[in-house]
Amino acid sequence: MKLIESITAMKEYSSALKKGGSGIALVPTMGALHAGHLSLLARAREVCDVSVMSVFVNPAQFGPTEDFAKYPRDLESDRALAESAGCDCLFAPSAAEMYPDGYCTYVDAGPIGDILCGAARPGHFRGVATVVLKLFNITAPAAAVFGAKDAQQTAVIKRAAADLNLPVRIITAPTLRDADGLAMSSRNTYLTPGERKQAANICKALFEAKSLFEGGECSVERLKNTITSTIIRGGLIEMEYADIVDPVSLRPFPANTESPALIAVACRTTESKTRLIDNVVAG
Amino acid sequence: MKLIESITAMKEYSSALKKGGSGIALVPTMGALHAGHLSLLARAREVCDVSVMSVFVNPAQFGPTEDFAKYPRDLESDRALAESAGCDCLFAPSAAEMYPDGYCTYVDAGPIGDILCGAARPGHFRGVATVVLKLFNITAPAAAVFGAKDAQQTAVIKRAAADLNLPVRIITAPTLRDADGLAMSSRNTYLTPGERKQAANICKALFEAKSLFEGGECSVERLKNTITSTIIRGGLIEMEYADIVDPVSLRPFPANTESPALIAVACRTTESKTRLIDNVVAG
Repeated sequence: MKLIESITAMKEYSSALKKGGSGIALVPTMGALHAGHLSLLARAREVCDVSVMSVFVNPAQFGPTEDFAKYPRDLESDRALAESAGCDCLFAPSAAEMYPDGYCTYVDAGPIGDILCGAARPGHFRGVATVVLKLFNITAPAAAVFGAKDAQQTAVIKRAAADLNLPVRIITAPTLRDADGLAMSSRNTYLTPGERKQAANICKALFEAKSLFEGGECSVERLKNTITSTIIRGGLIEMEYADIVDPVSLRPFPANTESPALIAVACRTTESKTRLIDNVVAG
Repeated sequence: MKLIESITAMKEYSSALKKGGSGIALVPTMGALHAGHLSLLARAREVCDVSVMSVFVNPAQFGPTEDFAKYPRDLESDRALAESAGCDCLFAPSAAEMYPDGYCTYVDAGPIGDILCGAARPGHFRGVATVVLKLFNITAPAAAVFGAKDAQQTAVIKRAAADLNLPVRIITAPTLRDADGLAMSSRNTYLTPGERKQAANICKALFEAKSLFEGGECSVERLKNTITSTIIRGGLIEMEYADIVDPVSLRPFPANTESPALIAVACRTTESKTRLIDNVVAG
């Protein structure tokens, strides 16, 4: 596996591959790799000749009070994991090269980035859309693979890719879960043992709601109440939102759920103040 | 010359050329072509095998009270002119295809788009940066040629191209002028005969200031006053701004001009309310 740490070298690598007729599938990550990331890489390897995984903790998508400084970073471990999963190239640029002095251009994703997680994290999806566009321009992929856990991220990127006429196929790969159902996330390492145990309720609540909806319950309010009561039971988790929305536009269904529906939640633990998100598609 | 009016067809054309090893130089225009545009095309033909000129009156860069509706449009004339100038492909997409229902992604150029013309035209450079990025993604050019008359547009595009790591070389080509010095512009057709005569003062004022600066006058205030008094003499033109700024960052010099300096003006005629811009680089 090749490790590339400069933008120029990555552009050269990508350009040489393209000249040779190979297509690249990109897996953008912030590192702290887990089995979820490696499943995205496996998907990337299915769709293109060459897989590139980027590892970049993107300052532009963190708010001033968020966990940018403490976000887990371990390039040596990421490198070993990516290589063991058959990654062809790991791209790990520096923040100084990605956002040099005087940097001022951002991609505004519009209203789709201001709702759900965007409401609690102003500017987050602007940072996401910007760094993804930069990574696309640097690596020139034919396809890029994103995890379904970050449903709004994927919706924003799909919308931006269509709007900006990007020549990149956006692929969503399924959420990987621990044995008790908790969606894999680099932030799970923040959880206290008590929180970790309670966190299994998030997935449980989502699948309960999916099952109720598919069994005929279509009241948005009742479904949301069911989700919330299951998640907060146990006391170590507070809700940020539970919402039932159109899976593409992310527009909330006002009273009655239509099909298909994205059932999405964000919550925060009370001890370690960890923000956790998860979702299922129902109907 | 090929005429392409759909995004899909343009992507196919560009993709086939790239596979064949040819590079594209793009000249983005809003049509109403004049000799200035054709000089950009000539430059494009020097730098790449294939020249593509886009003709698209971009709604996103016009303010609600601006001249979008009356902006001159004549595709048949543009087609003949482009073909006579050796253009390989004219790309003229529809607004409905460029900005379909639900469109919501924009490129925010940052502070460099909020000063000078951007101060009087809020959102203008956001619209410019967005459409240029879209045109780049559709035509995949190796180079793109912009006219020096639109100095801020070029500075914004260069900044955005660097920030977003676009694989496109941005080339500036000199302003073409009528015999009396008036910078060629599609909007000159709006001018009344009296305004047209007065408009020659704009260029005269700029070259006077350049000559004064290069002769040793470095007071920003005195240079601006000289420019303004020359332009408004005759009474059919009002100033929007006269400014002396760094040619790359567009930051104004506070008291004394440094070298090189971009001397830029925007003004408006009093009868036809035509907005005219021009600039020179001095030092």
